[in-house]
Amino acid sequence: MTNLSNTANQQGASPMPFARYTPFVPVDVPDRTWPTRKVEKAPRWLSTDLRDGNQALIDPMTPARKLTMFELLVSMGYKEIEVGFPSASQTDFDFVRKLIDEDRIPDDVQISVLTQAREDLIERTVDSLVGAPRATVHLYNATAPLFQRVVFNVTPDECRNIAVRGTEMVMKYAEERLGGLVGSEDFGYQYSPEIFTQSDTDFALSVCEAVSDVWQPEAGREIILNLPATVEMSTPNTYADQIEYFGRGLTRREHSAISLHPHNDRGTAVAATELALMAGADRVEGCLFGHGERTGNVDLVTLGMNLFSQGIDPQVDFGDIDEVRRTVEYCTNLPVHPRHPYAGDLVYTAFSGSHQDAIKKGLEDLDRKAAALGVDVGELPWEAPYLPIDPKDVGRTYEAVIRVNSQSGKGGVAYVLKSEHKLDLPRRAQIEFSRVVQQRTDSEGGEITPEEIWSVFRSEYLDRETPLKLNSVHTSSAAGEKDQLTVGVYVDGERRELTGEGNGPIAAFVDAIAAVGHDVRVLDYHEHALSSGGDAIAAAYVECAVGDKVLWGVGLDANIVTASLKAVISAVNRA
Amino acid sequence: MTNLSNTANQQGASPMPFARYTPFVPVDVPDRTWPTRKVEKAPRWLSTDLRDGNQALIDPMTPARKLTMFELLVSMGYKEIEVGFPSASQTDFDFVRKLIDEDRIPDDVQISVLTQAREDLIERTVDSLVGAPRATVHLYNATAPLFQRVVFNVTPDECRNIAVRGTEMVMKYAEERLGGLVGSEDFGYQYSPEIFTQSDTDFALSVCEAVSDVWQPEAGREIILNLPATVEMSTPNTYADQIEYFGRGLTRREHSAISLHPHNDRGTAVAATELALMAGADRVEGCLFGHGERTGNVDLVTLGMNLFSQGIDPQVDFGDIDEVRRTVEYCTNLPVHPRHPYAGDLVYTAFSGSHQDAIKKGLEDLDRKAAALGVDVGELPWEAPYLPIDPKDVGRTYEAVIRVNSQSGKGGVAYVLKSEHKLDLPRRAQIEFSRVVQQRTDSEGGEITPEEIWSVFRSEYLDRETPLKLNSVHTSSAAGEKDQLTVGVYVDGERRELTGEGNGPIAAFVDAIAAVGHDVRVLDYHEHALSSGGDAIAAAYVECAVGDKVLWGVGLDANIVTASLKAVISAVNRA
Repeated sequence: MTNLSNTANQQGASPMPFARYTPFVPVDVPDRTWPTRKVEKAPRWLSTDLRDGNQALIDPMTPARKLTMFELLVSMGYKEIEVGFPSASQTDFDFVRKLIDEDRIPDDVQISVLTQAREDLIERTVDSLVGAPRATVHLYNATAPLFQRVVFNVTPDECRNIAVRGTEMVMKYAEERLGGLVGSEDFGYQYSPEIFTQSDTDFALSVCEAVSDVWQPEAGREIILNLPATVEMSTPNTYADQIEYFGRGLTRREHSAISLHPHNDRGTAVAATELALMAGADRVEGCLFGHGERTGNVDLVTLGMNLFSQGIDPQVDFGDIDEVRRTVEYCTNLPVHPRHPYAGDLVYTAFSGSHQDAIKKGLEDLDRKAAALGVDVGELPWEAPYLPIDPKDVGRTYEAVIRVNSQSGKGGVAYVLKSEHKLDLPRRAQIEFSRVVQQRTDSEGGEITPEEIWSVFRSEYLDRETPLKLNSVHTSSAAGEKDQLTVGVYVDGERRELTGEGNGPIAAFVDAIAAVGHDVRVLDYHEHALSSGGDAIAAAYVECAVGDKVLWGVGLDANIVTASLKAVISAVNRA
Repeated sequence: MTNLSNTANQQGASPMPFARYTPFVPVDVPDRTWPTRKVEKAPRWLSTDLRDGNQALIDPMTPARKLTMFELLVSMGYKEIEVGFPSASQTDFDFVRKLIDEDRIPDDVQISVLTQAREDLIERTVDSLVGAPRATVHLYNATAPLFQRVVFNVTPDECRNIAVRGTEMVMKYAEERLGGLVGSEDFGYQYSPEIFTQSDTDFALSVCEAVSDVWQPEAGREIILNLPATVEMSTPNTYADQIEYFGRGLTRREHSAISLHPHNDRGTAVAATELALMAGADRVEGCLFGHGERTGNVDLVTLGMNLFSQGIDPQVDFGDIDEVRRTVEYCTNLPVHPRHPYAGDLVYTAFSGSHQDAIKKGLEDLDRKAAALGVDVGELPWEAPYLPIDPKDVGRTYEAVIRVNSQSGKGGVAYVLKSEHKLDLPRRAQIEFSRVVQQRTDSEGGEITPEEIWSVFRSEYLDRETPLKLNSVHTSSAAGEKDQLTVGVYVDGERRELTGEGNGPIAAFVDAIAAVGHDVRVLDYHEHALSSGGDAIAAAYVECAVGDKVLWGVGLDANIVTASLKAVISAVNRA
């Protein structure tokens, strides 16, 4: 078409060894119907944050963090929650027991546990559920040819038999140990032909049929057939084709829930899920913000919010998305990216002036319409340039770039102090200072420049000289003894010499100023150089309780001791 | 289907105000052909990292960072690069001039600049290109009804005329100012009906036709029609439908390049791009790792690597993906997420024991095959459990969880020190220490526990006592004077008293130990409390040049001065 594409072709291949890879061969469904369909209601959701999500964390959740995650999921409205892999982990076993023994599972929530298809593991798995008011056992084995050959050394028939025998064992132990649960609607059975995407679709279907022959689904006794894209293999339409093909071939379709379990290796897990729902699936397994092995499971937040933005009830509450995010970040010890759909720090921010202008006009237009109709803007259909949803619906606000660079959050002011003044404020100090900035801008009008931020910072933390101002410091320390400190200080303008002792100069200084009536406890302390070299300025940040107030002080000095004592004084002078 | 979905329905709606949103109405293409097609070659790529990417950064790139990004893009093989919005920004104008005046654009690379459709802006835009050996002017205006009504207050005819007159102005000024470029293959013209996804497809097509009527594309004089999903509106198949519909309706198709410009509001930009390529598009605009307004532009890395994993030459070099990532993180001041496809820290890591076992068996199988054939593993078709590509093809290795928690990277060891010992190592110290750990594990075998990491840390940084060991410290400082320091030190076991002076105790200490032959310069310094309270232990980290070696020292002490002097001694003793 153009000289450019010709040029590229003439240049030939990039240095990448692409010839090592063979294209995915999709199942052939020429009469597919999913491209003409729409998703019109929320699927059943299963959160696997506590299983697939948890097992792929650098720092797996402690029991306390697991419980926090479980309670978050329940509060958001998830009704099916996979809580662990009890036969593989004592921690998981104990957590399942805790939920049951402490009666923490609401009546409308069904927990689920995963097991491999070995008798001892199935027995242990069922044992973890004794006493549960309702529960699902989830059995899996690998049906992909590579796994049969390389990992397990089994024939296809042996592979199918593993699933069949596993199902029989689940039924046997569940009937033995779980009282009347089996056969009632309160017991669920789920089977996954693992790595479904790399399996022959007809073979995976034949294994599911064999499993269903054993389970005998009927009204009130469904089977969940979960079809994992354990590794995402190709464009998302190929998963939809597999799902449509599978659903057409399945017998007892009305008593079977077809479930999706997509991973995000190609960055298209959300799309694959949506197209597969159009292709007839009933249920989706995923994690909040897409945690899970490697690139993660499909993100339940994006999926739910995508439905919401199309006028469909997501059946999940995302009304305070920042609280959801904070809780997940706490539980997983991993961040949510600033560009993560619906929840990232930057996703309701317009940086371009023309975008800001268009959004402003759009919001004004909504205000005018609402005024003309005498209703609240929240009652109008949402329509605004560049904003697919009203940020207020998830507890956020529309943030123009100036707000990111100033008052909206700690990110902006922290960025200005770091980039322009090399000051790397501790996180809680960032939050404190952003509130200070916000008070100024709220009272004096909307915008604030980096120069103004710096001026606010100086006058708030650095320039106060009453009641205390430091003049001189003498310290003395020796191994095994308490440190001694003598300081020259102006107290309300009057020169005083004070002495104190403690473990280090800060403690000794706190001791010294107690003599002139300042009750200070140091809670946290950070210090760093502003530039290279031993003669560089140090910045000290000290969090203090001064009387009944908790606040930060900041000190700058070439001397690291002087900087930290100045920081204590800064906190005292601010209090 | 089940009691659970019934339960959810009985409960009724979530508290989310979904009724405010109206579903997207897609264009109707019942005879679409794209679902049966495959992407079989790389599209033309345009990187807009320096324009759409740069304009959405908290910290827009400096000229130096812009140049680094430009050179990265060129080195990777991108042939079309949008370098700025020169009429909107003096920085962008100057950067375009710099590239041209300093002859930095390779012969096979075509730069592109964006402009709105106003005469003064077009003139300024064309002026930025004077002297360029080849260049593209990219004109846009908004064709979506909401923008016509709320933002610009124009009728559809007026909207179309803006595009037509803009095209005439581009031709006029380009012919006037750019010598013989216009009419040759070295001048490109690109038009974007902005917010194409929210525009009536027939109307957007009519505007493009009117623009083409002016430009008169023919052999050697193509037009690029760029169809932005400025806001991603619905499932990715709807974008593909729009593209197929547009392509069918377009006259002069053979002289027009249909170009995609997707954003990621719904988390499906990669999928939308792939399906739209199946629907006939020729060209893709995006950013490395998906930077850009809000949720970002489509990610060119994932798109290219998705092609690679299907045996298609991406026409771009991703052979050292960590270097690409580091450079982009430097230029954008934003992180790449640990789960980002192909490039994140965790994406070649298996945490689950069964995953690790399967991968191990798969890699052994490849080794056996290679040995039997007498070839290198790299020459075999790639096939391994859970790993869609060979990590080595992008310069990575397969990392089991134990490696993340220990030797593979600074992340794991830093995590152990932080979570178990409250030590928050500065970034370069993390890198240094992870190398120390790696040396131990390389010589002593694969695995290392958190206890062993701590033991290595202690013996490397904290427990060395020769040549120097600190005994006592006396400091004295007064406003306006140099600080004085006297230390009691064991030098090779012999007690000595040393004095020094400087701006602060660290500088004075460096001065003092120079007297016993230690040549130290302090390069960086960080210190923080390990816990709450003024009596808490402080951890000091000092980066020193000791003779010709640069290395870190660490000191722990209740006294912040003693901690930092111990850190200097730690560095000296390590050297």
